[in-house]
This record gives sequence, C-alpha cells and structure tokens, in this order.
Amino acid sequence: MDNKGISKAVINRLPRYYRYLGMLLDKGVVRISSADLSSQMNVTASQIRQDLNLFGGFGQQGYGYNVAHLYEEIGKILGLDRAYHLIVIGAGRLARAVGSYVGFQKRGFRVEAFFDRNPAKHLDEGDDSIPIYPLEELSSYLENNKIDIGVIAVPAEAARKVVPVLDAGGVRGIWNFAHTDLDVPPYMTVQSVHLSESLMQLSYKINHSMIPS
Amino acid sequence: MDNKGISKAVINRLPRYYRYLGMLLDKGVVRISSADLSSQMNVTASQIRQDLNLFGGFGQQGYGYNVAHLYEEIGKILGLDRAYHLIVIGAGRLARAVGSYVGFQKRGFRVEAFFDRNPAKHLDEGDDSIPIYPLEELSSYLENNKIDIGVIAVPAEAARKVVPVLDAGGVRGIWNFAHTDLDVPPYMTVQSVHLSESLMQLSYKINHSMIPS
Repeated sequence: MDNKGISKAVINRLPRYYRYLGMLLDKGVVRISSADLSSQMNVTASQIRQDLNLFGGFGQQGYGYNVAHLYEEIGKILGLDRAYHLIVIGAGRLARAVGSYVGFQKRGFRVEAFFDRNPAKHLDEGDDSIPIYPLEELSSYLENNKIDIGVIAVPAEAARKVVPVLDAGGVRGIWNFAHTDLDVPPYMTVQSVHLSESLMQLSYKINHSMIPS
Repeated sequence: MDNKGISKAVINRLPRYYRYLGMLLDKGVVRISSADLSSQMNVTASQIRQDLNLFGGFGQQGYGYNVAHLYEEIGKILGLDRAYHLIVIGAGRLARAVGSYVGFQKRGFRVEAFFDRNPAKHLDEGDDSIPIYPLEELSSYLENNKIDIGVIAVPAEAARKVVPVLDAGGVRGIWNFAHTDLDVPPYMTVQSVHLSESLMQLSYKINHSMIPS
C-alpha cells in the first residue's frame, strides 16, 4: 500500500480509531455511523470521513462503517497483521514493566529477551520466562536472531551507545524510553516515549489551565 | 503569567528545550546561540527564536542565550519551581515503574502512596518506602492529604471509575497510563501516555518507511 501522502497527524489518530473500534467490537456493535463514532471519539464526523477516505474509505452511504471490517483494515494499515520480535535493552523496573506491557497485548509483539549490563541484579525480580542476557552478548544474539524492534529503557548515554549495535544487528525499529533523542540512519525508525516531558506538560497545564489535552 | 495565546505545539516543545538546556548545563556550557541550539535540536533557529520570544525572549542580540537563565525560566513556565504531591492508582508493574521513575526525577514530584484493589499482592515487590493502601481508602486519604496529581495505571474501566473519586478529593491533574480516554470536568487536566498507540505508530512506520518520528 502506498501511503506516502498520509500526514503524521492522521497516522497519530489511527491507533485511537483502532482502540475505539476494538471497544465497539467488544460490546458487540456491528456497524456505526461516522456521526456516532464522532460523538464517542470527540472528533468531527467530517474529520473521521476524511481520515478514513485516505485509506480507500470503508464506509457506505446510509449504512455507516462495518466495525469488524474497519477494525481489521486499520489493523492492517498499522501493521498489526504480522508478528514482531522484540528485545528490551535494560532490565530495570521500567524495562520490565514495558516488557510485561507488550506481552499483555493480544497482538503479534513478542518480547524475546532482555539485555542488561548486570543481569544478575535483576534475575530474582523476573517472574516470567523471558531471559535476561548480559549486554555484551547483544551483537552475537542479533547475528543469530532476527529482531524487528529494540525497546530501549536505559539511561541516555547507554541508549545512544546501543543504537549502532542494534543497527548492525539488523534491527529496524526502536521504541525509545530513554531521556534523549536518538540519531538513527534513515532506514531505521524511532518512536520515543518521553515520560518526563509528558509529566512536564501536565505540570504546565495544571499551572496554566486550561489547554485541552 | 498569561500564556493563553501559547499554542499546544509550542507547549509540547518546551520540555524538549528544557531537556537540551539541562544537558548543556551539565556540560558546563554558559551561553548558546539560537543557531547552535538549532543544529543540536534539529529545529530551525527561527523557530527557536519565535518560540522563546513568546515567553518574553531570553536572548540578547550577538550574545545568544544564557543557558542557566533560560533553563530556569523555562522550568518556571513549566511549573517546575514548585512541589507536587502525587499518588499512583494501581500497584502493578507499570504503576511501580512509573512511581519509581517519578521518584528518580530530581524535581518536585513526590509520590506519596500507591492505591490498589489488592495491596497485599504487591507488598513484597516494593523495595521502597512508599506505602500501598487499599483502593477503598482513597476517598478518606484524599480528605486528609492534599494531592495535586493522580497517576492512573490500572485497566480502562477501573481508570474511568476512579476519576470522580479523584475529582471529589481535590486532585486537579491526572497522568493517565490506562488504555482509554478519560472524561474530566473542565477544571481538571489529563495528560495521557498511550503506550499501545505509541507501539502501533512504530509498527506503522516500520511498515511504511519513512515518516520522521
């Protein structure tokens, strides 16, 4: 599918459509009008029609959207119809929490291993079957295992150092939780979750009410 | 300070300025030109000047920005010059990780307590001194303690149910990690970290390279 014309704003909205459609599916809703979806999601109906038309339009005049079909199609667009093999760099609390979180997703994201400077420190905290390897073994591990996504949950400097190792090992996607931006070659993709920036935005809004979140 | 005219986009950029200035401070950099800051942050120098002018402009022609001063001023704008009392709803892995994360911040965010349906389940995982109380005690706790921010790290339904309790207890800011949007009264503020949406954006980008992150 050629989605080169799709703006970042639309892509940022797609997971939210997917979430709402999943909720509707769980409730047994079979079809929904853009007006109903609009009032639930708090975006305009015309925005919804415009967004979904970009992907070929799944709605029918007078019928609305078939929830299951739209859910599946958006899932495909988001790349959720395939499996991803992940490793997590770091084995501290945040790393373990993110690893567990990904594991809870009923989708194809599979955490294969954690890598940490000091695996022994974290071994007894692990109540699941995912191994923790020493960071020195990352290169050789990547030689022998095809990994799609590296989750980075270590301090900023260690995060920047691990990027070339992931790159050389064929990893093409990085989910970054480190408190830094990461420079990557153009064929790699970084998605960052900057927790402290999110918290600062909250404190800003608390002190300068009210900017819609 | 009256920042009503400040757009959400600028506010979203301020924490990033704050992060870069903090890094410069750590390196002992005393002043920096908008051109140098621009090349480090990968935004245009005119964008930087425009953003910072909105807050009164801290730069001087031919001198650039005084790093320490600008860091402090942006910190004030972000509301980082005061203390915040936080509680965390949930005591599972993500809740504990976020609680620890906030604790590591060398700023005024103080996690006072966790609240969980089943505190006993998590007691032995806690290696710090922050208490875990049963969720039923939340109301009475909030009557006796002034809490600024409620961190929500429980499933979607439980998250929606806890909002009115936080509201009634005087909590004005919510940092939401639940997989749902939260409806709050206009005097409350929600900042959401939707991890699964972030992961889906990554999978989208991996499959439709390359949209800059």
